[in-house]
Amino acid sequence: MNHEAQNPASALVLFSGGQDSATCLAWALERYARVETIGFAYGQLHAVEMTARQRVRSAMAVVKPEWAERLSEDHVVDLAGYGAVAESALTADRAIEITESGLPTTFVPGRNLVFLTVASALAWRRGIATLVGGMCETDYSGYPDCRRDTIDAQERALQLGLDTPMEIETPLMLLSKAETWALADQLGGEALVQMIREETHTCYRGDREHRHDWGYGCGTCPACDLRARGWQEWRGQGA
Amino acid sequence: MNHEAQNPASALVLFSGGQDSATCLAWALERYARVETIGFAYGQLHAVEMTARQRVRSAMAVVKPEWAERLSEDHVVDLAGYGAVAESALTADRAIEITESGLPTTFVPGRNLVFLTVASALAWRRGIATLVGGMCETDYSGYPDCRRDTIDAQERALQLGLDTPMEIETPLMLLSKAETWALADQLGGEALVQMIREETHTCYRGDREHRHDWGYGCGTCPACDLRARGWQEWRGQGA
Repeated sequence: MNHEAQNPASALVLFSGGQDSATCLAWALERYARVETIGFAYGQLHAVEMTARQRVRSAMAVVKPEWAERLSEDHVVDLAGYGAVAESALTADRAIEITESGLPTTFVPGRNLVFLTVASALAWRRGIATLVGGMCETDYSGYPDCRRDTIDAQERALQLGLDTPMEIETPLMLLSKAETWALADQLGGEALVQMIREETHTCYRGDREHRHDWGYGCGTCPACDLRARGWQEWRGQGA
Repeated sequence: MNHEAQNPASALVLFSGGQDSATCLAWALERYARVETIGFAYGQLHAVEMTARQRVRSAMAVVKPEWAERLSEDHVVDLAGYGAVAESALTADRAIEITESGLPTTFVPGRNLVFLTVASALAWRRGIATLVGGMCETDYSGYPDCRRDTIDAQERALQLGLDTPMEIETPLMLLSKAETWALADQLGGEALVQMIREETHTCYRGDREHRHDWGYGCGTCPACDLRARGWQEWRGQGA
C-alpha cells in the first residue's frame, strides 16, 4: 500500500523526447528488464517536445523486439507551477542569449534537481531504485546542474531523504555529442540512429519544419548547433 | 533580466501556515530586512492549510511593527502533479498509520527535497541566498527528509546545481516541540504565542472545529498529539 519493495531489474528514465534522453532510454532497455519513463510538463513553449515523447516510445519498441517487452509505463507530471517561478527562454518569450552572469537565458534554475527529486518520489512508490538521466557535462551548455558532482550531491540527498538506495545513472555524462550518436549506433545500430534522427526533438524553438542531415530543427539555436556539430563529427569519422 | 544579484539581507521562508513554519517566519523576521514566503499546493486534502497561511501572515505583521515592514511577497506554487505521484494519507483518502516499512502513511516521499529545490529556483530568480525551513529531527515523526544530514546534502546539491551560494537555515532542527513554543515566546512574547495558538494549523485531518489549550485540531492525529504534548510540556515548565 505504501510503496513496493525495490526491484533491481527496474529503472525509471527521465525522458523528454530529445536525442539525449532517447539514447538513455535505449541504454536502459539494454540493461533492465523493466523500464518506465517519466516526463515533465513545466510550461515548455513548444508542444512538439511532448508529442515527440510518444512517437519515440512507440518507435523504440520497433528497434528491437526485446525492447518492446521491457518498455513499461510512461508517466507525465505537470510541473507548470514550477515552470512559472523558474521562467526562462524555454517557457517565456525571451531571446536565447548569454546573460552577463555567463549563463544562457535558456537556463531553467534547478531543473534537473527538481526533475530528479520528483522522479525519485515516483520511483520510491513504484519500487524502483535506479533513475537514468541524460545529463552531460561535456557539452553542458553552461548548465551547472548537468555536472556529475551536482548529480552526486543530489543522489546523496535522495538516498538520505528517502532512506533507501537510489542511484542516478548518467550514461552520457562524459560523452561528446558525436560519442552520443556512436553510443546509439552501438546500442541499436543504424535502425536506432535513424529513428533518433527522424523522431527525437531537440530544437529550442520547437521547429519541425526544417529537415537536416541530423534531424529537424531551426538549425541555428544552440541546441540545433550542438546536435548538428555532433552528427557531422561522428559521420565524418567514417560511419 | 536573468536573475537578480544576491542580497544577504533577504530570506525566503518555506511557509505552510503550521506552528513550525510560523515560528520560522518569526525567526526570519527578527534576522532579515526582507522576508518572502513560499507555499506549495500539492493536493492537500484540506484547504484549511492554505487559508491559515494568509491568516498567519496578516497576524504576524501585527505582532511587531518592524515585522510588518520586513514581511514581503508571498508565493504559492502549484505542485499538484507532484502530489499525485507522491500520494500519501495527506493527499488521498488513506488511513493515518505506520506501515510495515516503519514509515507513517503520512510520509510524502521527497517532499522537503522537492520543496527546497523549487524554492531555490525562485530564490535564484529573486536574488535570495537563504532558505528557511521548519524541518526538525527531534520530533521528526519518522520522516527521513527532516534530518539535518539530508538537508546538508540537499544544500550542497543546490549550491552546485545553481552555481551560487544557497544556505538552508533550519532553526527548529534540534528543538523539541516544547522548545519551539519557547522559541516563539522568546521571539515575539505572549502576543506571538497566542497568535500561533489561534491561527496556525497543524492537524492532519484539517479539523478547525475542536478548540484545545494548544489550538484547533482533531486532537488525536499524530500532528495534534505532538503539538499538544509540546504545549503541555512547555506550559507545565512554568510559563
